[in-house]
Amino acid sequence: MITVEEATEQVLSRIEPLPAERVDLVDALGRVLAEPVVSDIDVAPFDNSAMDGYAVRAADVAGAGDDTPVTLEVLEHIPAGAWPGRTVGPGQASRIMTGAPMPPGADAVVMVERIRPGEAAGGPGGTVLICAPAAARENVRARAEEVREGETVLLSGETVGAAAIGLAASVGHAELVVRRRPRVAIVSTGDELVDVTEKPGPGKIRNSNSYTLAALVRLAGGEPHILGVARDTMDDTRALLSRASEFDLMVTTGGVSMGDFDVVKVVLEEIGELDFWKVAMRPGAPQTFGTIDGTPFFGLPGNPTSTMVGFEMFVRPVIRKMAGFTSLVRPRVLATLSHDVKKKPDRRYFLRSRITRRPEGGYSVAIAGNQSSALLTAMHRGNCLMSLPEGESFFAAGTEVMCIRLDMEEGTA
Amino acid sequence: MITVEEATEQVLSRIEPLPAERVDLVDALGRVLAEPVVSDIDVAPFDNSAMDGYAVRAADVAGAGDDTPVTLEVLEHIPAGAWPGRTVGPGQASRIMTGAPMPPGADAVVMVERIRPGEAAGGPGGTVLICAPAAARENVRARAEEVREGETVLLSGETVGAAAIGLAASVGHAELVVRRRPRVAIVSTGDELVDVTEKPGPGKIRNSNSYTLAALVRLAGGEPHILGVARDTMDDTRALLSRASEFDLMVTTGGVSMGDFDVVKVVLEEIGELDFWKVAMRPGAPQTFGTIDGTPFFGLPGNPTSTMVGFEMFVRPVIRKMAGFTSLVRPRVLATLSHDVKKKPDRRYFLRSRITRRPEGGYSVAIAGNQSSALLTAMHRGNCLMSLPEGESFFAAGTEVMCIRLDMEEGTA
Repeated sequence: MITVEEATEQVLSRIEPLPAERVDLVDALGRVLAEPVVSDIDVAPFDNSAMDGYAVRAADVAGAGDDTPVTLEVLEHIPAGAWPGRTVGPGQASRIMTGAPMPPGADAVVMVERIRPGEAAGGPGGTVLICAPAAARENVRARAEEVREGETVLLSGETVGAAAIGLAASVGHAELVVRRRPRVAIVSTGDELVDVTEKPGPGKIRNSNSYTLAALVRLAGGEPHILGVARDTMDDTRALLSRASEFDLMVTTGGVSMGDFDVVKVVLEEIGELDFWKVAMRPGAPQTFGTIDGTPFFGLPGNPTSTMVGFEMFVRPVIRKMAGFTSLVRPRVLATLSHDVKKKPDRRYFLRSRITRRPEGGYSVAIAGNQSSALLTAMHRGNCLMSLPEGESFFAAGTEVMCIRLDMEEGTA
Repeated sequence: MITVEEATEQVLSRIEPLPAERVDLVDALGRVLAEPVVSDIDVAPFDNSAMDGYAVRAADVAGAGDDTPVTLEVLEHIPAGAWPGRTVGPGQASRIMTGAPMPPGADAVVMVERIRPGEAAGGPGGTVLICAPAAARENVRARAEEVREGETVLLSGETVGAAAIGLAASVGHAELVVRRRPRVAIVSTGDELVDVTEKPGPGKIRNSNSYTLAALVRLAGGEPHILGVARDTMDDTRALLSRASEFDLMVTTGGVSMGDFDVVKVVLEEIGELDFWKVAMRPGAPQTFGTIDGTPFFGLPGNPTSTMVGFEMFVRPVIRKMAGFTSLVRPRVLATLSHDVKKKPDRRYFLRSRITRRPEGGYSVAIAGNQSSALLTAMHRGNCLMSLPEGESFFAAGTEVMCIRLDMEEGTA
């Protein structure tokens, strides 16, 4: 048996990021840039006011104060989006709004809270009383202060969040070049499976894994394609598995254990390259990795919890690497066990658990329900996987254990 | 001026969760259940094997061991999905796969690792050597052990994650009843705005806020609808704002400060109910809340950073409450300042910052770039808002400050 880390490393070493595509700005959300974003303008594009107020000559208002206001002649009103028409000379000012271009002659802005309107309510042709001094360049944002035309504002490899989208829009990008979302084919296998809309007859259970996997693929940043259920015959299994090359990745569930009727392994050996492991983990020891016509292939065990844990440990990192992410590991935190846990020492255990913040600092963790459930209840109620190492068999309440945070994205501090 | 908390509370008190809708199972991902999910079956639906092995009568194998194997006659092979045809009598066994129904007569399963095949390789008509005892019910999952038909497996109000989707599929739900996603209208205002595809002329800047808001709405669980740019005229602004009732929520940016050309306020007073505040926060002090034809309305300031911070503090909780979530507050953690920070004492500051985990435990935090930027660079590079309270003006390096985690979902422990 190999360890989880060995298996993950072995898989990831064979995966490359997918090619790039050009998408509409907002559709780039959550994806990874494959090209840098370069500005086509200076930011700010012109000297402009950082405040609503009056554009003045700093020298004119050096002595201004509440009790010693300086009266200036008001030339014009410059709203945001307009262009100034007049040059501010000695003893003059122009009313100016936030973001509006500075008029020639003026070198500072006095904010509206520090003036008193004079004649004509401080409007054009009237006067304004300046009640505070202003240093040269005060409340003025200089042209190209932040970014010069041609400068890179977002790097290739960065994830596109909401702020990146705004930033890209500001510098002229209606589209972005990002890594393609991995297209993931999902196949469930087994004669015992019936559709969710059917009531299972004797010996049958519903196919839930296809839906769980579709959700997991979407959350990982991939595009799920449910291909359906392969019955336990060579023909049926071959028919679905041979479609792998239409996709970037194929994931099946069921049919890879040591059971007699598991044909996935046999078909894989026939039409692809098989790399079968037993990973030293529970749940989900038997895992298959391989390729079909060059498309990576995962055979996850059919038990719903094993499927989810296997996806989390092996498939999610692959989808993220294909999508261009470099953070491939969920955050791990230490938490104090709130009860004893026993396990067999032969392998790593991943217990579906719930971590909570303690008022006094740090975290505590407890299992989130029946661990041998055929249902995903514990997975649903939990927010982490408690990772209990190989070689040990007893963990007393109060012990610190490592928890893999399923409620946090990779790269979260 | 009112505090951020007062403003948030005032807004949220007027918001109700939206009505429910029925959606396909996988489309319910990330949404909130508006009805409980009830099982239409027993789980397990029948007594079944938890292992690949042999179904036996426990009494027959009580004395079995490696050196004292018990030889049993093998009746049949029961794969998953099949139904047993034979009753296991004394001295008999049937080969059984994980998940397959227990045959009548048998009351325990001996796993395949604890047997040796006898005649006919342990297949039907042959024999098997049992090398370990089994207690009654060992490796047998009992019918209805986990869930009885009619029992609730997911509660109304719970968020639908991947595990919930699998769970719902298992108990017969191809669709789920969830809260509707809020439809959010996005309007930017200002004569100075040009489209992202245009090169801004003198005095103009690009409309980036519409795109940032669309991304933020999507991340919050809403459905963004960009309505376009309202010019600074009554007619243009009225035309767009009067469309509010087509949506669940309207958000505008720009046009609500104290500037002379801000017509949003005037139009709102004319066609809706206006509730204008100055919130004691920076960035983003002037915020408008109100209703137009009963649709909640937010007027956020036009500066891109103020827009984002205003959205985060006021609009995101509203979208989440409408979508049915009960956790409306981002996680907050204490972090040690890695440099001095000065501020004015008059109001709360939200500094765009980057929090990192310290190897020795806990977190440290530093601002993520130029805080007065016209661009969203600091917001892009940061992962939190450092929240510095009213009434204080200096925070020395080493001080513990509260950080609002923008990289974590509400409700994360």
